[in-house]
Amino acid sequence: MMSLWRMPWFGASRGLLGTPGLRFQTVLHRHIPKLVLGTNFSSSTDKLVSRFCSKNTDLKDYALPNASWSPDMMRLYKELLEKTKDGEWIKMPSFKSNSDHIKGLKIPGQSETTSDKEDYRIFTRCIENEGQGYEYVIFFHPSKKKSVCLFQPGPFLEGPPRITHGGALVALMDETFSKTAYLAGYGLFTLNLNIKFKKVIPIGSVVVLNVEVEKIEDQKIFLSCIAQSPDQQVLFAKGSGVFLQLELEEE
Amino acid sequence: MMSLWRMPWFGASRGLLGTPGLRFQTVLHRHIPKLVLGTNFSSSTDKLVSRFCSKNTDLKDYALPNASWSPDMMRLYKELLEKTKDGEWIKMPSFKSNSDHIKGLKIPGQSETTSDKEDYRIFTRCIENEGQGYEYVIFFHPSKKKSVCLFQPGPFLEGPPRITHGGALVALMDETFSKTAYLAGYGLFTLNLNIKFKKVIPIGSVVVLNVEVEKIEDQKIFLSCIAQSPDQQVLFAKGSGVFLQLELEEE
Repeated sequence: MMSLWRMPWFGASRGLLGTPGLRFQTVLHRHIPKLVLGTNFSSSTDKLVSRFCSKNTDLKDYALPNASWSPDMMRLYKELLEKTKDGEWIKMPSFKSNSDHIKGLKIPGQSETTSDKEDYRIFTRCIENEGQGYEYVIFFHPSKKKSVCLFQPGPFLEGPPRITHGGALVALMDETFSKTAYLAGYGLFTLNLNIKFKKVIPIGSVVVLNVEVEKIEDQKIFLSCIAQSPDQQVLFAKGSGVFLQLELEEE
Repeated sequence: MMSLWRMPWFGASRGLLGTPGLRFQTVLHRHIPKLVLGTNFSSSTDKLVSRFCSKNTDLKDYALPNASWSPDMMRLYKELLEKTKDGEWIKMPSFKSNSDHIKGLKIPGQSETTSDKEDYRIFTRCIENEGQGYEYVIFFHPSKKKSVCLFQPGPFLEGPPRITHGGALVALMDETFSKTAYLAGYGLFTLNLNIKFKKVIPIGSVVVLNVEVEKIEDQKIFLSCIAQSPDQQVLFAKGSGVFLQLELEEE
């Protein structure tokens, strides 16, 4: 399969956003390329999934129950975990950084000198104390290309007093889109997000995000999301997202 | 002005999303009401601004420079601060929680028993260590109803390796929309968000978000946002947002 790593989006720094003292200038900010590939991405879902969910790791999986999870959250988790037994659904692991998720795969624009000394964290795992921030777990159905994310927002995700910040929901929707798009067809970068908020989410509630791949077209993956209460009686928000399809190369 | 606090959105708990052990069940999740008010909100911007930016507080303002700010961030901050001297622009303070911002104003659905013991934080201030998460400051132009937000994402806002999470940008866009919508016309709750991502933002870059109120119609505030590099040569993202107009009542 052709390498996409020499695409115009990435390359040597021209210092467009040079931030002296920082180490990130090697990633460029050119236009997102309009690539046209004939590759059938869908056939490699199984390979992607088995690599993504490798058990051969001692990295901490943040998508596991802890004492802060409410009874509703636990019940839904157990129900979904039960469904993984026949292999139709898989529980996605969730590590501290996406660098951990794609170990052994090459990231565009990252030079050899990029150090790992800095403590990077994926945004939706930025608050480490249990229950304070994001509590969530994503389950994925490879053959149907859909996901379910269980989400329990903590008090550090506040927007209006005692209510979850709209941006916190959107960020997790984007994250669920992103992981789903990656496993379903090498979706890597968000192109569009569109969210309609229907009802407020009190801090501490449980929210179920149902994400589906609607279509894959012109190297774009189109996804939809419905965020509801566990009993499906309350619709919190509806969203859609478009992701760019790019395949990562082995290092 | 009529009180909006008895609107159907809020009220006593019916436990739709009951999360035992938590204290937030008093906020209900009914449909966002379609209110039709003839009130001219714009006349009260000055009052809102002077209350919001009150100097009579000993709360920590997180929107102040610290050692993690890059030279670009500092330069832009100083330029905008200079513009506040003639009173045309104001620098918004940024406290730990929105409860601090609207002290003395009544929040719908919050009963007297709601305790403040829990440590709540506004999502975009959820990471307290300087430089690790969100570094940002918002300046507002009351008469033109527009804002400028300076944003420097830290390593805890990661999406793809070394690149800012799309959701982290959207959350700050939502936050800037929200504060602008509130001061420009009592905009309180996000109804819609729509974002087009154009280029990736490396961790540590400086991003300038220019937010404008496009129109206020049918009790909705329509806003736009352009996220660019400081020299305006790189367009990172464009967004729009719609907020519901609701006036807070004195306690």
